[in-house]
Amino acid sequence: MPKLDLSRLPWRTGSGYPGKLAAAGDGRSVQPLGDPGGLTQYGVNIVRLEPGAMSSLRHYHMEQDEFVMVTEGTCTLIDDQGAHEMLPGDCASFPAGDENGHHLVNRSDKPAAFLVVGTRTPAETAFYSDLDMMVKIAEGQFNFTRKDGSPLTADQTGENT
Amino acid sequence: MPKLDLSRLPWRTGSGYPGKLAAAGDGRSVQPLGDPGGLTQYGVNIVRLEPGAMSSLRHYHMEQDEFVMVTEGTCTLIDDQGAHEMLPGDCASFPAGDENGHHLVNRSDKPAAFLVVGTRTPAETAFYSDLDMMVKIAEGQFNFTRKDGSPLTADQTGENT
Repeated sequence: MPKLDLSRLPWRTGSGYPGKLAAAGDGRSVQPLGDPGGLTQYGVNIVRLEPGAMSSLRHYHMEQDEFVMVTEGTCTLIDDQGAHEMLPGDCASFPAGDENGHHLVNRSDKPAAFLVVGTRTPAETAFYSDLDMMVKIAEGQFNFTRKDGSPLTADQTGENT
Repeated sequence: MPKLDLSRLPWRTGSGYPGKLAAAGDGRSVQPLGDPGGLTQYGVNIVRLEPGAMSSLRHYHMEQDEFVMVTEGTCTLIDDQGAHEMLPGDCASFPAGDENGHHLVNRSDKPAAFLVVGTRTPAETAFYSDLDMMVKIAEGQFNFTRKDGSPLTADQTGENT
């Protein structure tokens, strides 16, 4: 039925980032809502951030519109213009191709959460603002490289540290 | 900037339904969030319902995924299975082509509101569950007819009553 029982929908944790960059996913959990509801044209997730956690490494998408609404606690949006506090009901939008890299971090001492919507596209490229890294996504596979397409080094992914 | 200042974004009222059916929009106001944020791949709106108001006539979409999250008050989701109370944080999804017609009504004595997301598609057809009416939407134009494509009568649109 259309109404979702969020108390029964599973959460997932962890991160697909390479090497020690995967630690960027620590304290973050994701509850998919769109897939269990049968949606295919965009994804909808609740993302929950423990104190100190972040939504992702700061990035921007080339193909997919992204929208967030804070639903619990206080999130801080970090983008090229600085830090912007966001409370429940506050919203932000990130059009595809806008090179203003962004992520949400929980700088508070309580859990925080937000709803996020992202278009489903056959392929996607995202660039990371604070690293020489990009990801190309196709058919569910994530290929992380430097921005020129060459392989990431162990130094970059923290595996030498 | 990506963070939206909802206090400055305009609201719109009224309904595009034909004839006296337009009264279905009474007590409903809509604040677009996706367009002012530069999103083009899906629409995002806040819909506010005064007591007694409804989101729309009960309908389903053939081309566009729809997702809602209640953000304020109590909404009642009406679909083919009956009435389902929805509180802030409760979500529902309506995949394109699922013929379970739905709308949200405010049966409480306080204002209610919800966030709604809908895919942008070049064209759309929606069917109304409780009326012999459909709408075809293309290039911003809404063409309401009977489900067989013939013109609505004045009886159907309430103009003879």
